[in-house]
Amino acid sequence: MRVENPPLLILAISGSLRRGSSNTAVLRAAGELAPAGVEIALYDAMASLPAFNPDLDDNPPPAAAEFRAALQAADGVLISSPEYAHGVSGMLKNALDWVVGSSELVDKPVALINASPRATIAQAALCETLTTMSAALVSEASIALPLLGRVLPPGGIAADPEIAGPLRVAVQALASAIQARRAGVT
Amino acid sequence: MRVENPPLLILAISGSLRRGSSNTAVLRAAGELAPAGVEIALYDAMASLPAFNPDLDDNPPPAAAEFRAALQAADGVLISSPEYAHGVSGMLKNALDWVVGSSELVDKPVALINASPRATIAQAALCETLTTMSAALVSEASIALPLLGRVLPPGGIAADPEIAGPLRVAVQALASAIQARRAGVT
Repeated sequence: MRVENPPLLILAISGSLRRGSSNTAVLRAAGELAPAGVEIALYDAMASLPAFNPDLDDNPPPAAAEFRAALQAADGVLISSPEYAHGVSGMLKNALDWVVGSSELVDKPVALINASPRATIAQAALCETLTTMSAALVSEASIALPLLGRVLPPGGIAADPEIAGPLRVAVQALASAIQARRAGVT
Repeated sequence: MRVENPPLLILAISGSLRRGSSNTAVLRAAGELAPAGVEIALYDAMASLPAFNPDLDDNPPPAAAEFRAALQAADGVLISSPEYAHGVSGMLKNALDWVVGSSELVDKPVALINASPRATIAQAALCETLTTMSAALVSEASIALPLLGRVLPPGGIAADPEIAGPLRVAVQALASAIQARRAGVT
């Protein structure tokens, strides 16, 4: 008897709290463009994550425990983040700091979307941190999207073929990497 | 009539909330070692700073407004921070993100202490961010201290000549940079 694969769950994490954030918009669009059998859930509790405190690593505050559980439950992670002052969004890095010791990202397929191709320093720093955390970076799913200064169609990013095209391919590549990994361990 | 210079106020910022943090200990020691006329105040409200939200940049939450005011009131800044997963402490970067737009660090003398000389990636990234923010980095006050694995004397860092010596020199160098700047604008 052949059992159907359960749907893939990808946790999408935006590095910006701005309401009109391009990064958050890209992640929402990724959810609309995801193929059947792939669910993309936006992590929306970043604002409630407290500042990382190593003394609480073994007994984290509820928001940090929930973030860890959300990562643990996900088959893969899709990150899109702005660069602030040539550095990683502090809020995003603080979230990652909460899971350095607890290891939810170890061997987890992760794709990095860069919504601002001119911002390369934070992207490189994020890549270095995720590699140090032993996340499985999926390079073929990590793309730059030329969103800056672009007038999007009424349907938003998912309706813009020049952005939706590569974004759809990236999501598929992340899903394929997750499936390959699943097959490898089955 | 010659008016005495008011005392110099240096805001000390630790990148770690850990109770036994070496970085916080270094900053406390710097306060003990400061020369007459130099006051070093430890910023102790980092845990209450919310995640940066660009939408609130012009109307920040109270903790962010207080952080900005503390920086504005300081003549200089002394930072000591750990490196987490080859990156800047997210909590510290989040604090800096709150003042990128409001500009309290522009032209402000800043010294970076590195309490773990083997951790060079975060220090370089912090340097890049502070330079991008137009802070006036004081290189002769930015030193590495070999604290790791060291058994400190009962009096702590300030009682250890091999660490207190260079730390005292660094504080003096930061104070001199502030004074030179003051003299320049008088």
